[in-house]
Amino acid sequence: MKFRIDVSLKPGVLDVQGKAVEGALHGLGFSDAQNVRIGRFVTLEVAGDDPTHAEAQVKDMCEKLLANPVIESYQITPL
Amino acid sequence: MKFRIDVSLKPGVLDVQGKAVEGALHGLGFSDAQNVRIGRFVTLEVAGDDPTHAEAQVKDMCEKLLANPVIESYQITPL
Repeated sequence: MKFRIDVSLKPGVLDVQGKAVEGALHGLGFSDAQNVRIGRFVTLEVAGDDPTHAEAQVKDMCEKLLANPVIESYQITPL
Repeated sequence: MKFRIDVSLKPGVLDVQGKAVEGALHGLGFSDAQNVRIGRFVTLEVAGDDPTHAEAQVKDMCEKLLANPVIESYQITPL
């Protein structure tokens, strides 16, 4: 079972990396770029035949390692 | 016009961050996790009414700043 996990800062949390990239884009002449936000994604495979169990494991991985639930939200997509 | 850009290492490029996360997952007991790879995504808005021009600008941003075309591939999705 292959999964993709998208991790992004919760709305309202200042995205300093996004702000830095936005500033750099403006510096390069892309003055039309706005609201730049950066997130990350993880693709992984979970061995085993039970999709429900695999997805529950991935959720557990997110809570324990892949995301910071205090400031980040995540979305799990089976691939 | 809002866009999402997915940036990932090209296949075959060693993903050290992914390997580190995979090792950490195994250390936490998730021994079924395999082939962990990490990418990033950028969401941004481009002011203006011409979608073709906006998408061309985003492609230019990718080549100049958002991705490293030597080792990374990117995919632009209009939102």
